[in-house]
Amino acid sequence: MEKIYYLDNAATTKMFDDVINGAQKFLDKDFYNPSAVYLPSVNIKREIEDARKTILNCLGAVEGNLIFTGSATEANNTVIFSQVNRSGKRFLFGAGEHPSVIECSKELERRGYRVEYIPLDKDGKIDEEKFVAMIDENVAFISIQHVSNETGAVNDIQRLVKLARKKNPTVVFHSDGVQAFMKFPIRVESLDVDFYTISAHKIGGPKGVGALFIKKGAKIKPYIFGGGQENGLRSGTENVFGIISFALAAKKMNMDIQRNYDIVEKYRFEFLSELEKNGFNYVIHGAGVPHTMNVMLKKGVRGETLVHALEARGIYISTGSACSATKNFNRTLEAMNIDKDEILSSVRISFSAYQDFDAKEVVKILKDEIEKLEGKR
Amino acid sequence: MEKIYYLDNAATTKMFDDVINGAQKFLDKDFYNPSAVYLPSVNIKREIEDARKTILNCLGAVEGNLIFTGSATEANNTVIFSQVNRSGKRFLFGAGEHPSVIECSKELERRGYRVEYIPLDKDGKIDEEKFVAMIDENVAFISIQHVSNETGAVNDIQRLVKLARKKNPTVVFHSDGVQAFMKFPIRVESLDVDFYTISAHKIGGPKGVGALFIKKGAKIKPYIFGGGQENGLRSGTENVFGIISFALAAKKMNMDIQRNYDIVEKYRFEFLSELEKNGFNYVIHGAGVPHTMNVMLKKGVRGETLVHALEARGIYISTGSACSATKNFNRTLEAMNIDKDEILSSVRISFSAYQDFDAKEVVKILKDEIEKLEGKR
Repeated sequence: MEKIYYLDNAATTKMFDDVINGAQKFLDKDFYNPSAVYLPSVNIKREIEDARKTILNCLGAVEGNLIFTGSATEANNTVIFSQVNRSGKRFLFGAGEHPSVIECSKELERRGYRVEYIPLDKDGKIDEEKFVAMIDENVAFISIQHVSNETGAVNDIQRLVKLARKKNPTVVFHSDGVQAFMKFPIRVESLDVDFYTISAHKIGGPKGVGALFIKKGAKIKPYIFGGGQENGLRSGTENVFGIISFALAAKKMNMDIQRNYDIVEKYRFEFLSELEKNGFNYVIHGAGVPHTMNVMLKKGVRGETLVHALEARGIYISTGSACSATKNFNRTLEAMNIDKDEILSSVRISFSAYQDFDAKEVVKILKDEIEKLEGKR
Repeated sequence: MEKIYYLDNAATTKMFDDVINGAQKFLDKDFYNPSAVYLPSVNIKREIEDARKTILNCLGAVEGNLIFTGSATEANNTVIFSQVNRSGKRFLFGAGEHPSVIECSKELERRGYRVEYIPLDKDGKIDEEKFVAMIDENVAFISIQHVSNETGAVNDIQRLVKLARKKNPTVVFHSDGVQAFMKFPIRVESLDVDFYTISAHKIGGPKGVGALFIKKGAKIKPYIFGGGQENGLRSGTENVFGIISFALAAKKMNMDIQRNYDIVEKYRFEFLSELEKNGFNYVIHGAGVPHTMNVMLKKGVRGETLVHALEARGIYISTGSACSATKNFNRTLEAMNIDKDEILSSVRISFSAYQDFDAKEVVKILKDEIEKLEGKR
C-alpha cells in the first residue's frame, strides 16, 4: 500500500508520543486514588489542579472554573440538563450542532420543553438576522457551536453573545468549542459565554476525557452525583492519566497554535490548487477554519462510495462527523439548504499540522478513484 | 524509608503492566475513531465488542448486555435516574451504599421522590427481616451493593432479590458490584438483578472506565445523549484504551480469582494472628470478603492520625472510602450502630493478591506508631 494519509482529524487525532510518555506514570507508578489523604494521593490531586490551570490558561481564562468530564458529550449533557428547571422558557439550539447537543435538545422536546432551532446561513454559520429575531425575554438558554464539526464554519460567538444579551441580559449561553479549541487562539472570557465545552481527543490527547469551562458566577448543577470530585460538580474517580494527558496535549498545541494554523492553511491551499489543476469542479460547503472542509468533489459520485474506495488506497476521510456517520444523513448540510444529491456526493476532509500532506499525490489518487467509480477507467 | 505496603486496594489498584502493554497500541497506532466507517475503525469497534463479551463472560452472563461508562459512578447514576418516571412509588437504598448511589438517592429526595433506606445489621449487611418488611407493591426500585466498600461485608444478593420479587415481582433491582467483581466468582444472571455496576480501576484496570450490566429485557434509558455509541445507551467517543484495558484486566483477574482469594485470605489470617500475638484488642466491623476490613486497632487512637503516621512509614491505609474520606464521617459504620468514638478510631485495610505482604513487619510498624501516638515511647 502507498503512504497513509489520515485526513479525518475532526473525528479524532493521534495522541502525541510525548504526551503518552509524559502521562504514562499515572497509569503505573502514580496510580493512587486522588481523593485519598496520604501524600502520593495529595500530589496527584495537585497535578490534577495544575492540569486544570494549564487548560484554563490555554482557554485564556483568568477567573473561570473548569471541570473534567468523561467526554465532551458528557460536558454538553451536563450544561443542557442543568437548565431543566426553567420550563415555560424557550431553549435555542443552532441547527447544525453536534449530536451531543442535538440529542439533548430532542430529549428536552420529549419532556415537553420549548425547543427551537436557529437556522444556518449558506456558509454554515448561524443566520445572524434570524438569530436576533428569535431572541426575547423568554429565551432561557442558547447553545451554539464555535466551529462546525461538519464544515469547519466559524461562528462569531462573541458577537452572537453580545446580540443575545442586548435583547435578554439574563440568557444563559453555551458554546461547544470542541472543534475550535487549539485551532486558533481563544479567550473564553472575552467570548462572554457562560459555558464552553472542549475535548482531549481532538487535540492529540486521549479518548474518554472532556472538560467544561464555567464562567465565574455561572450557575450549574452536577449531572453525575457521588463522591464529590471536581468540586462536587462531577463525581467519579478522576481519570488521572486522561486529565494529565489532556493538559500536556493542550500545552503543546498552545505553543504551536500559529505554526499549525499556517501549515494547515498551506495544506488546504495546496489541496485546492491541485484540484483545480486537475480540472475538479469542486464545491465547498461552509467556510471557516482551514482544518476542516466539507466538499463535493464530483457530483454523482457518492461520498460513501468514495470514502471506501480511498480507504483501499490508504486515504482516510469521512462523509461527515463520526458520531453521525452511520446515520446516512447530514443535518448540518440540510440546514444549509444544500441539495440532497449534492449532500450525498460530499465528503469531509480534515487536516492535522502534525502529519505530512502531499497534495499532488492525494489528488492524483482522488482523481484516479473517481474516474474508476465513474467507469472512465 | 522501609518497603512500601499499599493496603488501600479498595480505593484503587495499580494497573497491571501487561494490561498497559496490551492496550497501549490503542493510544497511538490504533487511534482511529471507532465510529468511523473505514477498516481500522471497524476493527477497533470489533475489539470493543470483544471486550464487552470478555467482561460479560467474566460476569458469567449469557444473555445480558453491558454498556461502558466513564466510571462506575456514572453507571449508578444512569440506572437510578432512569427510574424517575415512576413518581409516587417507593425507592429503597441500602443504608451503607457508596456515595455514587447515596448522592443519587438524596437528589431523588430533593426532587420529591419517596426514598427510604434499608437498615444494616451489626455485620454491615442488609438487615434481612427489616428489608422484607419494607417490600410492598409500591416499591419501584431497590439498590443494594454486593460488597461494602467500607467493611467488605457481603450481601446475599440472590437471596435478597428472591425475597423482594416474592412480595413484588415487578420491582427493579440494581446492585453496585464494584467491590465484588473479581473478588469471587459471580454469575450475574443467577443473582437475577436487573442491573449490576462494575469498575475497571478496582481490578487492575485504568481510572475513567466503568460498566453497567443490563439483564436481558430490563428497561433503561440513556443518561448521556449524543452520537448514539453503546447501542444508543451511552453516547460519547469510546474510551478505547480504557475499555480494552478493562477487559484485559478482567480476563487476567478471572484466571487468578481462586488463587487471589486464597492469597488474600492468608494475608488477612496472618495479619490478625500477628495482631493477636502483639496483644492488640482489635475490633473488626462487618464480615465478608477477606480483601477489605474495617478495624479498630486501638480505641482512642484516631484513625485519621494513624493513617498519617503510617504513611510516613510507607504503609498506606485509609479511614474509609476515598470518595468520602474528606467528609470525616462514616455513614456505613453509623448505620451499623457503632459508637462514634469507635468509628473515629477505625481504619480500613484492603489487600491485593498481587502485592507482597509481610504481616510481621506491618504489625511491628503499626504497634510502634500506635505506641508513639499514645505517648508510650
